[in-house]
Amino acid sequence: MPVNPSAPIEITAFDWVPDFAKGLVRDIRARWALEEAGLPYAERLFDARRRRPAEYFSEQPFGQVPAFRDGDVSMFESGAIVLHVAEGSAALMPQDADGRARALCWLFAALNNVEPLVMELATVDVFARGEDWATLRRPSLVAAIEAKLGCVSDALGPKAHLAGRFTVADIVMTTVLRGLRHTDLVSRIDNLAAYVARCEARPAFQRALADQLAAFEPQPSVQ
Amino acid sequence: MPVNPSAPIEITAFDWVPDFAKGLVRDIRARWALEEAGLPYAERLFDARRRRPAEYFSEQPFGQVPAFRDGDVSMFESGAIVLHVAEGSAALMPQDADGRARALCWLFAALNNVEPLVMELATVDVFARGEDWATLRRPSLVAAIEAKLGCVSDALGPKAHLAGRFTVADIVMTTVLRGLRHTDLVSRIDNLAAYVARCEARPAFQRALADQLAAFEPQPSVQ
Ligand SMILES: N[C@@H](CCC(=O)N[C@@H](CS)C(=O)NCC(=O)O)C(=O)O
Ligand SMILES: N[C@@H](CCC(=O)N[C@@H](CS)C(=O)NCC(=O)O)C(=O)O
Repeated sequence: MPVNPSAPIEITAFDWVPDFAKGLVRDIRARWALEEAGLPYAERLFDARRRRPAEYFSEQPFGQVPAFRDGDVSMFESGAIVLHVAEGSAALMPQDADGRARALCWLFAALNNVEPLVMELATVDVFARGEDWATLRRPSLVAAIEAKLGCVSDALGPKAHLAGRFTVADIVMTTVLRGLRHTDLVSRIDNLAAYVARCEARPAFQRALADQLAAFEPQPSVQ
Repeated sequence: MPVNPSAPIEITAFDWVPDFAKGLVRDIRARWALEEAGLPYAERLFDARRRRPAEYFSEQPFGQVPAFRDGDVSMFESGAIVLHVAEGSAALMPQDADGRARALCWLFAALNNVEPLVMELATVDVFARGEDWATLRRPSLVAAIEAKLGCVSDALGPKAHLAGRFTVADIVMTTVLRGLRHTDLVSRIDNLAAYVARCEARPAFQRALADQLAAFEPQPSVQ
């Protein structure tokens, strides 16, 4: 589905971010879920260099992207947004109790067990790069991430997806693991590297990524 | 509901943790949600000093607590568990679309926006206490937490709960904020401090807390 300015669903995203963030901004999760579900959406863009307008905090209490609107329902947090989309789409959520439970567990594992360490590494390697504490902290943090990824790798084993088939959990885990693309932490683990490549190869991901990146291109000026 | 060894629902928890963790171990979320929903549960206890048995990793891929079982459904991640319980209980989840959306957004905000920083502070103040990097990191981390809590406080305003009424999101946000109890970061913000006190005063929380703490008491030996 192309981004469609007259679609009833709207997400927020950025039209400028620093290079390291391109392809990683969390609206990618909402875009990807909407693509898998076959739902067109409009976008409302902010410049990441400027503080978001005060009224935006009533939509997203932290002033972050993405936020999401679909008619009357207004949502924030990429995890909540993709779960909401998944609840309306069998493409993202198994319809049996066990499959649904697996997908939920891995959705939360990605967001609350793996991503906190990935975020800490982003602080160390990007936002606080070169600060003494960041240099000193890095080895123990990398060791913690290695242990965590080892658990994910063991649980995945030879399976193609985390919850028996592709689900919303794979959208979130893949985008979390992409936050390690500046390291070899994932690429060193064969089944995890293949898992990320497999999920990234999905046409829906490719469209979501292209649309996030397109928003960073200078827009043709209106004459 | 008292812990009941013959209940169909079972959670995992610890029978030993270090003092700083007492009352904070994440099974408190599952216990609290089950209490609010009026569901009795059994507990299976591990000693946090010992590595969990290898077969436990097939239930909880990171070897952590809590895990949850209810007949055929087996789950891990406290967030997934409390959401699963909430889906079966109007006491935890509003039944209208907008209320449900608010509860989901705040559930994920607590787990994926606030808790990562609280976890990082636990590393700094407890696990890596006294290490050079931890001492150097602390001021900027505290500033980040202050900014985050400011957003939560602004969004809460004078309201009693995050999503219009008590929901599963308050269980998770309260237990996340309890992770700052060794600091004055929450107690300095009047409406947040009152919010945590209000949620902690609920009889269901008090029973959940008492039952987590009871599991740390030496058990009468069977003669
Ligand atoms: N837990 C939130 C995190 C959102 C988030 O961190 N968004 C970033 C972009 S990836 C942002 O808007 N940063 C700009 C800012 O914080 O001012 C979610 O998953 O939606
Ligand atoms: N994101 C997980 C975190 C679980 C977690 O960290 N559990 C801790 C206790 S609070 C644990 O089992 N730690 C022992 C260990 O990691 O070996 C959840 O919310 O369930």
